[in-house]
Amino acid sequence: MKNILLKIEYDGTDYQGWQRQRSREHTSASKRGSTVQEAIEGVLEKILQDTIHIIASGRTDAGVHAHAQYANFKTATTIPLTRLKAALNSLLPADIRVTTVKYVEKYFHARYAAKSKVYRYTILNRTTGTAFYHKYIFQVRNKLDVAAMKQAAAILRGTHDFKSFQAALKKPKETVRSVKRISVKKDNSRIIIDIEANGFLYNMVRIIVGTLIEVGLGKRPPAWVRQVLLAEDRRKAGPTAPAKGLCLLKVRY
Amino acid sequence: MKNILLKIEYDGTDYQGWQRQRSREHTSASKRGSTVQEAIEGVLEKILQDTIHIIASGRTDAGVHAHAQYANFKTATTIPLTRLKAALNSLLPADIRVTTVKYVEKYFHARYAAKSKVYRYTILNRTTGTAFYHKYIFQVRNKLDVAAMKQAAAILRGTHDFKSFQAALKKPKETVRSVKRISVKKDNSRIIIDIEANGFLYNMVRIIVGTLIEVGLGKRPPAWVRQVLLAEDRRKAGPTAPAKGLCLLKVRY
Repeated sequence: MKNILLKIEYDGTDYQGWQRQRSREHTSASKRGSTVQEAIEGVLEKILQDTIHIIASGRTDAGVHAHAQYANFKTATTIPLTRLKAALNSLLPADIRVTTVKYVEKYFHARYAAKSKVYRYTILNRTTGTAFYHKYIFQVRNKLDVAAMKQAAAILRGTHDFKSFQAALKKPKETVRSVKRISVKKDNSRIIIDIEANGFLYNMVRIIVGTLIEVGLGKRPPAWVRQVLLAEDRRKAGPTAPAKGLCLLKVRY
Repeated sequence: MKNILLKIEYDGTDYQGWQRQRSREHTSASKRGSTVQEAIEGVLEKILQDTIHIIASGRTDAGVHAHAQYANFKTATTIPLTRLKAALNSLLPADIRVTTVKYVEKYFHARYAAKSKVYRYTILNRTTGTAFYHKYIFQVRNKLDVAAMKQAAAILRGTHDFKSFQAALKKPKETVRSVKRISVKKDNSRIIIDIEANGFLYNMVRIIVGTLIEVGLGKRPPAWVRQVLLAEDRRKAGPTAPAKGLCLLKVRY
C-alpha cells in the first residue's frame, strides 16, 4: 500500500465544511449538503475504483476556505502521481483544486503529523462593500482601532487554556493550546489577522476574531482579553466572527 | 453647478467595459451589453432626476477590472455627499461600488487631470487552476522565467513610441507614451506586473504582458523587446493577454 498526500485549496462558500458535522449542524435537506471531503473521496473512488478514506490535517467549518489543506490516504494504485493529479482536477468541481500530490512515508498521518496550522482572518474595515471579495471577507463598517487589537492579540500569544474561545457545545477534555504567533496587520482597508497554533479548538479563531473586534470597536479595553482567557467561559468572550472571512493558510509538518 | 468626483471599484467580468465600444466590438444581442458607465449614469439619473454625463479617467475594456477608477460629473443637486454615496451603493449592482464621493473644483476633468495611471496584470503561473480567483487572473501553465521578464520589462521603461503595443485597429495620431514604472514580481505562484504611465494606448498593457510572456516562456530573448519597440508594428509584438487578468489599480492626479 502507498500513502499519498494531497495539498488542496478550496473555496468553502458552497460546502458544509471539510467533514459533515452530523450531530451539531441542522442543515435543511434543500441546502447543498456536500462536504469537501466527500467531494474528494468520491472522485478518488471513481479514479481508483476502490473505497478511499482521506485524513485531513483537521476539519474546517461550513463556509471556511483553505489555501493549503493537506490530506493523506492509503491506496494500492500504480497510477503515476501526475496522472492522478490531472484526473482529480478534471473531475473535481472548480472550487476545489489539488495543487500537489506526493508519496509520503507509510506512517505519515496528516492530522497527527501537523506541527502547527496557520489560519488567516480577513476583515474589510470600511463603510462601502467590496466589488470583488465579498465571499472572502467579513465587513465591519465602524472604524477599528488596530493598535488596540494588536495589544489584545499579544495577550493570547503563548500556552493557555483557551476554553473561553471554544464553541459552547463542544467539550473536549483538553482545552490548552499554544499560540505561536498572532498578528494583526492593516493593509489599506483590510485588517488581516494571522494565528499560528499547535492546534485549534472548535471555532477558536472565529471567537478570537470576534473578541478582538470588540476591542477594535472600543467596547472593551485590550486588557479585557486577559479576563476572558482566565474566565474559561465561552460566554465571557466576543461573538463568533462569520466563517467566510476565515482561511486555512498553511499547515507545518 | 457642482463638480463631483467618484472613486469607483468594479468587477468587470459581466460588463462590456467602461464605455461601449460601438464601432470596434461586435457583441451579440444576447450577451449582457451594459457598461459600467451606463450603470452608474443610470443610477445617478434616478437619484438626481436629471441627465448626467460622467467623465472617467479613461476607458477600460470589456472584462477589465478596476480597484480605483475615477469619474466626475456636473450637477445642481443639494443632496449631501454621504447620502448620495449611500444611495448610489444601494442602487448599483454589487459588482460596482462607489468608495468615495467628493467635491472637486469647477474645471477638474477626470481624464485631462490624470497625471498617470497604474495598471496591474496578474498571471497565475502553475499547472493547477485556482479555486478562488479565476475571474481575476490569467493562468499560464508552463513555467515563466521571471528574471528574463524583468529584463525585458526594463527595456520598456521611459518615453517611447509604443505603436507596436497598440491594437492594430486603433490609429490615434500620437503613440508616444512615458512608462514611469514597470515591475514584474513573483508572489508564490502569481506573477504581478505593474505598469505606470502618463497614458495608455488601446490594449497597450495587455500586449506588453503578452510580449513579456513570450520572453518568460523562453520563445524570445529579453532583448527582442527592443526590436518590437523599434518596429512600430503591432504584428511584431506578442499576443494580447486576456482582459480578466487586468485591473486599473490607481490614478494619480
